[in-house]
Amino acid sequence: MAAPPKPTRIGLAGLAVMGQNLALNIAEKGFPISVYNRTTSKVDETVERAKKEGNLPLYGFHDPQSFVKSIQKPRVVIMLVKAGAPVDQTIKTLSVHLEKGDCIIDGGNEWYENTERREKAMAELGLLYLGMGVSGGEEGARYGPSMMPGGSFEAYKYIEDILLKVSAQVPDSGPCVTYIGKGGSGNFVKMIHNGIEYGDMQLIAEAYDVLKSVGKLSNEELQKAFSEWNKGELLSFLIEITADIFGIKDDKGDGYLVDKVLDKTGMKGTGKWTVQQAAELSVAAPTIESSLDARFLSGLKDERVKAAKVFKSAGFEDSLNAPEVDKAKLIDDVRQALYASKICSYAQGMNLIRAKSIEQGWDLKLGELARIWKGGCIIRAVFLDRIKKAYDRNADLANLLVDPEFSKEIVERQSAWRRVVCLAINSGISTPGMSASLAYFDSYRRESLPANLVQAQRDYFGAHTYERTDMEGTFHTEWFKIAKQSKI
Amino acid sequence: MAAPPKPTRIGLAGLAVMGQNLALNIAEKGFPISVYNRTTSKVDETVERAKKEGNLPLYGFHDPQSFVKSIQKPRVVIMLVKAGAPVDQTIKTLSVHLEKGDCIIDGGNEWYENTERREKAMAELGLLYLGMGVSGGEEGARYGPSMMPGGSFEAYKYIEDILLKVSAQVPDSGPCVTYIGKGGSGNFVKMIHNGIEYGDMQLIAEAYDVLKSVGKLSNEELQKAFSEWNKGELLSFLIEITADIFGIKDDKGDGYLVDKVLDKTGMKGTGKWTVQQAAELSVAAPTIESSLDARFLSGLKDERVKAAKVFKSAGFEDSLNAPEVDKAKLIDDVRQALYASKICSYAQGMNLIRAKSIEQGWDLKLGELARIWKGGCIIRAVFLDRIKKAYDRNADLANLLVDPEFSKEIVERQSAWRRVVCLAINSGISTPGMSASLAYFDSYRRESLPANLVQAQRDYFGAHTYERTDMEGTFHTEWFKIAKQSKI
Repeated sequence: MAAPPKPTRIGLAGLAVMGQNLALNIAEKGFPISVYNRTTSKVDETVERAKKEGNLPLYGFHDPQSFVKSIQKPRVVIMLVKAGAPVDQTIKTLSVHLEKGDCIIDGGNEWYENTERREKAMAELGLLYLGMGVSGGEEGARYGPSMMPGGSFEAYKYIEDILLKVSAQVPDSGPCVTYIGKGGSGNFVKMIHNGIEYGDMQLIAEAYDVLKSVGKLSNEELQKAFSEWNKGELLSFLIEITADIFGIKDDKGDGYLVDKVLDKTGMKGTGKWTVQQAAELSVAAPTIESSLDARFLSGLKDERVKAAKVFKSAGFEDSLNAPEVDKAKLIDDVRQALYASKICSYAQGMNLIRAKSIEQGWDLKLGELARIWKGGCIIRAVFLDRIKKAYDRNADLANLLVDPEFSKEIVERQSAWRRVVCLAINSGISTPGMSASLAYFDSYRRESLPANLVQAQRDYFGAHTYERTDMEGTFHTEWFKIAKQSKI
Repeated sequence: MAAPPKPTRIGLAGLAVMGQNLALNIAEKGFPISVYNRTTSKVDETVERAKKEGNLPLYGFHDPQSFVKSIQKPRVVIMLVKAGAPVDQTIKTLSVHLEKGDCIIDGGNEWYENTERREKAMAELGLLYLGMGVSGGEEGARYGPSMMPGGSFEAYKYIEDILLKVSAQVPDSGPCVTYIGKGGSGNFVKMIHNGIEYGDMQLIAEAYDVLKSVGKLSNEELQKAFSEWNKGELLSFLIEITADIFGIKDDKGDGYLVDKVLDKTGMKGTGKWTVQQAAELSVAAPTIESSLDARFLSGLKDERVKAAKVFKSAGFEDSLNAPEVDKAKLIDDVRQALYASKICSYAQGMNLIRAKSIEQGWDLKLGELARIWKGGCIIRAVFLDRIKKAYDRNADLANLLVDPEFSKEIVERQSAWRRVVCLAINSGISTPGMSASLAYFDSYRRESLPANLVQAQRDYFGAHTYERTDMEGTFHTEWFKIAKQSKI
């Protein structure tokens, strides 16, 4: 393989599709790059692609030492390998050849505490470390992802010029990258991004379900509806690809491919982590939780088939009471329900980030995060500009729901939202994400919740005490004794 | 203080109310007991109570050595101290005086992995260890709790006679204790018990909310409704105390106390752990999750008061559309909705236990767990006997929902269930637990979910592949390319 004429600007290790594409993207932006992979055929494949895609300045290496030595000092190597043990293995392989001041960047979906552990271990060797979330899938990596680098600010500044050019570019709002914050904040923010992505996908699936199962829309009608939605407030990558999906014919049989896809959804760790962190941080995230649960339930295909039989034979369907619907009206209602639910989902995600930022002292800027998600990533949407503006108006906004614009939008949509959820319920269709979002809204905007009863119960059986609405202090009542006396 | 005439049968360390009560319970059942507490006034207090409550054979000690030495060999000491560091501290204090073959039992709400860590450390000293969940609050500890001992079977057998007498006794079904299983299984089962308790309390709070806020029931009417419910399928400790609560007048002002209790709910760790474990185990637990979220949202009282103002001024309430209701019919509907939701919640809890049992090789018996929850504990209910019988009929039941009896009960109640949730939604009242339960049911019993779309999206942007409904194998489609071509 051709050696670089002079040291390269940066290195990349781990040449699965994401790694290959990011390396080609970097090379295409004019930054000579060295690449390495343990399985060397991947190196050759990448070099071959760099040639084909325009003789890009990309140089392949079959051994880690010459790979590292080919990079200009201080060296920066981006890793794109599987989270967990493979990351530790790659760090081990690379770090023996690195020198003080060099830097490793983990571009995978890593658990933020692993990044912090590694950052500390690297610091002992005089090496810098970044954990950088990268969103956008394969296409994003190649043509412009959204990037969330966290960790050493010094290391970030050293490669900022590359990241600014490689990331997605959004007119009027700049490159989709920013220095997130210290420690594992880049991984954490990417994790929440993925949790929000789970929520978006679930809400879209529910919209599809209501339109298809209750509204009896054909795939052609669904494609038309989603294409129309993609011209308005819902304009986003996920709505766009959903419209695309409804138009794709099955190449292995009759009809449309989406109808042949098995209703079993896979998942990786980030959705799970998001839900666990929500519980840890005492932040309600019901929309995101419902999307994770929906994936779990989708996985129980065999059980569901059996359960459907059990309930059919128990006379289940006779008792449903779904009304006739007007298709155009339903499409409009569902659009509004989807949008209102989406506001709730993002409110949860942003509040998770803020709670963690406070816990860790990361000082994260919520508006800036919304900005770098406007392009490149899976959740990119015109909607994110509204979120950015909400935080521009008030950086300390307690919840997106109470932003003047969002609150107005919700009030305008709430009737449709309630109609859709009730229609689904009466049709025996579950809309767990939309219902959970609506319940979140109806809880958050209520001055008084029935939690007074829960707290009275806790004081009754566990002497957990309670506060009062009308005076300061902590109180305990001998409920049992009083009740017993009154029964005598 | 009086020394015991001969070595006592057992010891108990940690004399807060729970510890005092359990010690008195043990002594009252005829087992001479030694007690110890770091703050010695608690020891004297307990000795005093033992005298007053019938000269019970309870002996207090002010130093750990004489405490331990007073117990017959092999010695058993139950600890009732705060989970975490205090447990480690107490173990340290006690273990220096213990001898090979002696045993420590942690009766607190401890994270199961901590118990397993300690069991190993104790084994190295030749000591045995049990993690024993104890439910029933202060009253239960004194007069008969439900007990969930896990860990060393040898140690369990040695104190089985005590536990059988001390635990709650349920006619026709025996003492509310059984050997749960190895390792931390006793703590884990108690944790899920508490998660279920969260669910029960939330569902009851929602029933209260709908009856009060939509049905306009007075506290007298609420008390009557809950008292009636407590004679039927819902008969349980929590329904009983709820009825009690509605009858208790405010001793500091006019009206009823429940109306003066602030709607802010506290919590300890077990609900959080349950939700985190559900995510870890890939088990959908939406009812329990919604109950945790409801506690989080209840805690944001100040934010809610502000949000209520924001939405009031945005014209929120004008658009609600709550119909008139018939009180008697509503009470009957809500009862059915509560019961159907409860089935879903317990289905989630039991499946969490099964998933963990499989993961850990604990071989837990779900029916037996339902049996020991029939008395003594906070979730005790006639309903648990139905669960026990469901598992007696089929120990491998995939989900409580598909048990022939439960499935029939749900079908009978589903119309009322859907009416209540929709009524709440149209009244702007959130019923997150009931909605989440209904969505869980409607997802689990559906042969086809819209997860096909989610999986198609994942394959579109991330090449995650998909399965098909009509043929074996794993497939990937170049959705983007096909869509692009069709757009040209």
